[in-house]
Amino acid sequence: SIKIIGDHTDMYAQGYFAYDSKKSGGVTVSHLRFGHKPIKAPYLINKADFIACHNQSYVDKYDILSGLKKGGTFLLNCIWQEDELAEKLPASIKRYIAANDVQFYTVNAVGIAAEIGLGGRINMIMQSAFFKLANIVPLQDAVEYLKNAVVQSYGRKGQKVVDMNNAAIDRGINALIKINVPVAWKDAQDIPEEIAKRECACSALTQKKAPAFVKNVLVPMNKQEGDKLPLSAFADMVDGTFPAGTAAFEKRGIAVNVPEWQADHCIQCNQCSYVCPHASIRPVLVTDKEAGNAPAGFVTRPATGVEGLHFRVNVSPLDCTGCASCVRVCPAKEKALVMKPLDSQIQEQARFEYALQLAPKANPLNKETVKGSQFEQPLFEFSGACAGCGETPYAKLVTQLFGDRMMVANATGCSSIWGASAPSMPYTTNHKGHGPAWANSLFEDNAEYGLGMHVAVKQIRDRLAGQMHEVLATDISPALKTAMAAWIAHQESGEGSRERAETLTALLEAEKGQHALLNEIYKYKGYFVKRSQWIFGGDGWAYDIGYGGLDHVLASGEDVNVLVFDTEVYSNTGGQSSKATPTAAIAQFAASGKRVKKKDLGMMAISYGYVYVAQIAMGANQAQTMKALAEAEAYPGPSLIIAYAPCVTHGLKSGMDQSQAEMKKAVDCGYWALYRYNPQLKERGKNPFTLDSKEPTGNFRDFILGEVRYASLQAKFPEAAEELFAKTEADAKERLKVYKRLAEYSD
Amino acid sequence: SIKIIGDHTDMYAQGYFAYDSKKSGGVTVSHLRFGHKPIKAPYLINKADFIACHNQSYVDKYDILSGLKKGGTFLLNCIWQEDELAEKLPASIKRYIAANDVQFYTVNAVGIAAEIGLGGRINMIMQSAFFKLANIVPLQDAVEYLKNAVVQSYGRKGQKVVDMNNAAIDRGINALIKINVPVAWKDAQDIPEEIAKRECACSALTQKKAPAFVKNVLVPMNKQEGDKLPLSAFADMVDGTFPAGTAAFEKRGIAVNVPEWQADHCIQCNQCSYVCPHASIRPVLVTDKEAGNAPAGFVTRPATGVEGLHFRVNVSPLDCTGCASCVRVCPAKEKALVMKPLDSQIQEQARFEYALQLAPKANPLNKETVKGSQFEQPLFEFSGACAGCGETPYAKLVTQLFGDRMMVANATGCSSIWGASAPSMPYTTNHKGHGPAWANSLFEDNAEYGLGMHVAVKQIRDRLAGQMHEVLATDISPALKTAMAAWIAHQESGEGSRERAETLTALLEAEKGQHALLNEIYKYKGYFVKRSQWIFGGDGWAYDIGYGGLDHVLASGEDVNVLVFDTEVYSNTGGQSSKATPTAAIAQFAASGKRVKKKDLGMMAISYGYVYVAQIAMGANQAQTMKALAEAEAYPGPSLIIAYAPCVTHGLKSGMDQSQAEMKKAVDCGYWALYRYNPQLKERGKNPFTLDSKEPTGNFRDFILGEVRYASLQAKFPEAAEELFAKTEADAKERLKVYKRLAEYSD
Ligand SMILES: Cc1ncc(C[n+]2csc(CCOP(=O)(O)OP(=O)(O)O)c2C)c(N)n1
Ligand SMILES: Cc1ncc(C[n+]2csc(CCOP(=O)(O)OP(=O)(O)O)c2C)c(N)n1
Ligand code: SF4
Ligand code: SF4
Ligand code: SF4
Ligand code: SF4
Ligand code: SF4
Ligand code: SF4
Repeated sequence: SIKIIGDHTDMYAQGYFAYDSKKSGGVTVSHLRFGHKPIKAPYLINKADFIACHNQSYVDKYDILSGLKKGGTFLLNCIWQEDELAEKLPASIKRYIAANDVQFYTVNAVGIAAEIGLGGRINMIMQSAFFKLANIVPLQDAVEYLKNAVVQSYGRKGQKVVDMNNAAIDRGINALIKINVPVAWKDAQDIPEEIAKRECACSALTQKKAPAFVKNVLVPMNKQEGDKLPLSAFADMVDGTFPAGTAAFEKRGIAVNVPEWQADHCIQCNQCSYVCPHASIRPVLVTDKEAGNAPAGFVTRPATGVEGLHFRVNVSPLDCTGCASCVRVCPAKEKALVMKPLDSQIQEQARFEYALQLAPKANPLNKETVKGSQFEQPLFEFSGACAGCGETPYAKLVTQLFGDRMMVANATGCSSIWGASAPSMPYTTNHKGHGPAWANSLFEDNAEYGLGMHVAVKQIRDRLAGQMHEVLATDISPALKTAMAAWIAHQESGEGSRERAETLTALLEAEKGQHALLNEIYKYKGYFVKRSQWIFGGDGWAYDIGYGGLDHVLASGEDVNVLVFDTEVYSNTGGQSSKATPTAAIAQFAASGKRVKKKDLGMMAISYGYVYVAQIAMGANQAQTMKALAEAEAYPGPSLIIAYAPCVTHGLKSGMDQSQAEMKKAVDCGYWALYRYNPQLKERGKNPFTLDSKEPTGNFRDFILGEVRYASLQAKFPEAAEELFAKTEADAKERLKVYKRLAEYSD
Repeated sequence: SIKIIGDHTDMYAQGYFAYDSKKSGGVTVSHLRFGHKPIKAPYLINKADFIACHNQSYVDKYDILSGLKKGGTFLLNCIWQEDELAEKLPASIKRYIAANDVQFYTVNAVGIAAEIGLGGRINMIMQSAFFKLANIVPLQDAVEYLKNAVVQSYGRKGQKVVDMNNAAIDRGINALIKINVPVAWKDAQDIPEEIAKRECACSALTQKKAPAFVKNVLVPMNKQEGDKLPLSAFADMVDGTFPAGTAAFEKRGIAVNVPEWQADHCIQCNQCSYVCPHASIRPVLVTDKEAGNAPAGFVTRPATGVEGLHFRVNVSPLDCTGCASCVRVCPAKEKALVMKPLDSQIQEQARFEYALQLAPKANPLNKETVKGSQFEQPLFEFSGACAGCGETPYAKLVTQLFGDRMMVANATGCSSIWGASAPSMPYTTNHKGHGPAWANSLFEDNAEYGLGMHVAVKQIRDRLAGQMHEVLATDISPALKTAMAAWIAHQESGEGSRERAETLTALLEAEKGQHALLNEIYKYKGYFVKRSQWIFGGDGWAYDIGYGGLDHVLASGEDVNVLVFDTEVYSNTGGQSSKATPTAAIAQFAASGKRVKKKDLGMMAISYGYVYVAQIAMGANQAQTMKALAEAEAYPGPSLIIAYAPCVTHGLKSGMDQSQAEMKKAVDCGYWALYRYNPQLKERGKNPFTLDSKEPTGNFRDFILGEVRYASLQAKFPEAAEELFAKTEADAKERLKVYKRLAEYSD
């Protein structure tokens, strides 16, 4: 709209779009100014003539009308009839409209878009409604400009799309409903419970647990009122530390449909949970007693292979993004998950929350298996990542395995956004208060940042060991001596040091008064358990901008674990080409398809000989992913795991609900290879390189044409496409050949 | 001295050491202050009580006594007797001494050091002489402190070294000679020719050719008077550009001995010239007439295999550093080069300069052979690199092959210091005024800097081609059309475009008035010859600090040539450990020997498949070096050449005169491998990887123990040494195994 005004009138125009950092269900506020005088206003609009709200659920969440001038216009997209408005709108909005003589209009853009076949795309309808109401340009002209814009934007997608958008424009003009505002709205009364419900959708149970931060910072920021917070609200976190686990209090409820568990079909494989990008579906084991105390409808089935416990899959409807990944992956003969409208599943929320606060149980299975891992609490949950994101399931899995003793240095990129989008923090803690410590420094220095974390901890732990050696020579109790010796022997093992840390702590607690050194050692008890140091980042970081540092850190030989989310583009900033982008893929800065092949980051790291390296793709081989993560973490030197991650920037034609299946296709056709290079095998005289993917069988061309990033090259540059597609395939074959050779060596 | 005063008296002390950037024959001025009051003087000393000159040749070169207070003390280390001083000292110094009642002492420290067996190491003698004269600390105490310092500094080198240094201290006290200053010195007269000779040692011929810059900037800066230059002296170079070829006017005369050519023994192989780090020895071809006009003593021999021309090897005694590399490499049965005292060879200077200004001759041989390359003019000469430097011969060779159309982006490091130590510039131009354009940006961004140079030129040349295509369709002359078409066809070939550039330029000159585009094309005639883009840097740059950028530039696929001078340490800053440092080598930051193995930079680049990669070591295989450089430059994509370069930081036990032989040993024992990876072979269905070094025969351990960087580990940490030495050898073997496998593939 602002572009049309700027281009076609003699008015000055200004547009500023304030985004939040959520990648699914995010909010954008567009501030548009226009007028006959030059605009010198480098600040947001705080007095508006016109306010439009494109999403009816926002009336509950945000203070929408604040700043609308007396007599101004309010346009609300909603499915509500005029007579429902009194009930649906909160009292505060009703009062504002009535008190300020607001011209109030509604339009059912969602309904119209659905009718026309535009799905959720309401923008053309809302734009033409705006032009009708604003009356800046003669309506006929506005329609013409809008239609020209449609040709420009969608022309390449074919006449059908153009026609649908034109229809939307025509409909938008005539679908406006002028609301007769009842005088009674002036005195509309707030209902306290309603306000509470509107402000936080979590259950009373969850609300009770919420730290002060949630009330003081998270809720206001999420209401788009962060700018109004006083400095004092941050007094407890002047060093920039934000509390963990606060994403659980957002309960955004952004899904249209969410999965419903079909207990009778379920084979208890836990794969739904394995792949969920948002940790919104969780298997639990339940005792008889717990089942007895559960809220109504808490269906369970006897746990397969675990004597005396019940099994249940829990869904959190308000945290689910509705991506349907879980449904697609469910291997039950008859799907044990079925997508249902959110409204119909709200009662599952309380059941989910009941399940989460049950007594923690020792994992009856090996946690380093696919099924076993899902009985571990994810210490990363409910992030703002896109629905179906290929990156987050890896991060979640890592926290299930090592989260309670994990530190993460995170490069800037999607993983720093879904990893910590203020105000909420998806990394969380377990019942002991243990969870990942997470921080983001810069895009370019993340590997070094993580190395610094690691050597700092190593320094402290080595000093602890030295102090223990010293104190062992004194007359401390035999029990403490034994505990210390045991700790020293297992200092470098994750589980080993954890097992011994508690005894050691308890004994020190008793004896620490007897020796200054004991006291000193006790002070650092937080370091008894070996930390698991992780360095997370995207391919833009690992292959390009942070690569110099990454190489240096891998070369250092230090015990850090690097996890690269390889989306093959800079996803967070909209899909720029990186050195991980394969030949032929279209990306920003590579609009006519990338010309040179994908960099082989793994091979480069392998050339050191002392770096553990793996390529994984969880959707292709869940067990290999498990093995690689476990081996990498256990390897006492540097590890690099390159994880293939489908992303919305790829344009999966099958849809993001199929991102797991897409990984499988990628591996089946030889586009992506799975391997593990374990230097420890070399020490044992074995070939360190294991090729885990099989001889390709799938059709390479079919695979790449299933993604818009490749397919659109064909549409735009048919001749170049053929050549580049052939090269992509040849490149992948050549890579695979190198891997096969490595796999064949016997020494 | 200043440390002793600071440590052992209650005086305050300050020391500042002003270095120039020459790595051979450089000058250091030590500014030492001490006294009973705190010293708040953050500037150089300009009024001194005491001045010592440690090198007698400086009396001619620098204004030594400027600032010495009336009645102050001047100590001169010289071999001159008292009665020779009147003749040897310049008039200005004599006048200053007499006019200012200077207490003048001499000491023959050089003579004493030689007697004791300390070679040129005169510092202990000069220090004890200083303490005797300065009388700050009781002499006995000063001697004791000095001797303690000797034990600290040299204790590890054995009692013999300690004893020699102690003897030097004792001798220094008693060897002072107080000079009775003749009253006549007050009126000493300057002799103009003498001043000229003192200020520039070049011949009259060379002096005549000197650009104004030499007189206005170079000479004052080299006299340590750069700080006194007015800003206006730089008016012509406000953009920072310094003129090329000015190192030729320094004629530093720093060698003690220089080679003398033995015409009758010479087999005309040109290897002496090939290896000379300073381009101070040059074969020339001479016509009868030129031989006839030559200065006396211009000995020649009939040129082997070149009808009608004479051959001669010319030495520039005043540019030679006396490293003797040429002598060691000379393969003549009876050495055709013999080291002789500098004094005895001064008359060679004029002959050398005569040889250099002879008419350029077409190279009768292939310039891409060892011998042929040396008939090409080096466009890099007389740098300030260390005597025997392993880096500079590579740089010189590259300029002989591509210098007249070459651009160099240089990383910070030794190569930026010997490549351009203000005020002089060793990169120079040929008789047409063509030579390398050279610049240094930063340590870390050099690859990007070079890429930028390249793409800028490419952009201009592509535009030129486009303009020619356009103008070809008009009615320009058939001759010009032919010339343009020919140029377009050979645009991307170095020699091909050069051959066609002159004709094209001449034709354009005639016709350019006829068409605006012709004029435009003509303006850019400087771009007709294809540029050869080089990116130079050390291993610290390429393996570490600049690696992120280097990787990005190699991945870009652009036609740039990267030459890495691999000294396996940060040489310029004194030998810090880099990722190129092999296991066990002692370096700064790796004082107990490096623990992890050398990074395989070449293999990482090879993983791209479209980067030309070579490892070379000129002393091991001169022909392979030639081949690699020629192939790399010709390859129309990115090239990476990793050149092994012995360095003074290695501590060659055999001496830096053996740096070429050391390279051979390195390759013979399997420490360094020679290979070439040429992607063009792959296109032709051949194995792109050629292993050029043979199965190792030499003794690996002998090789590493021949260098102090390894041997000293044995002295310091004998047990660790054994283990690390074994690992270094195993690492090298493993590398070689990988190369052998690559070499074996047939597809
Ligand atoms: C030095 C620097 N350059 C650019 C940016 C902007 N930036 C932030 S995230 C990002 C993309 C990250 O891409 P990638 O590393 O591939 O991670 P992904 O988003 O794909 O997970 C960019 C370019 C930045 N933060 N810092
Ligand atoms: C970013 C940066 N860090 C450090 C330096 C200081 N510095 C200048 S040259 C040099 C060493 C260069 O070593 P290398 O690249 O191996 O080249 P060599 O001197 O061995 O030829 C260093 C550390 C610098 N100039 N810039
Ligand atoms: S629909 Fe998506 S977000 Fe929701 S539970 Fe399933 S996988 Fe998780
Ligand atoms: S994926 Fe399906 S079968 Fe497996 S646990 Fe989940 S609901 Fe049950
Ligand atoms: S990686 Fe892709 S799918 Fe995941 S959050 Fe980023 S943009 Fe969305
Ligand atoms: S002694 Fe060294 S510097 Fe002198 S000419 Fe020979 S190689 Fe060159
Ligand atoms: S190396 Fe010796 S034989 Fe060869 S050209 Fe030089 S002087 Fe002659
Ligand atoms: S590379 Fe070594 S030998 Fe050459 S100039 Fe530098 S320090 Fe001297």
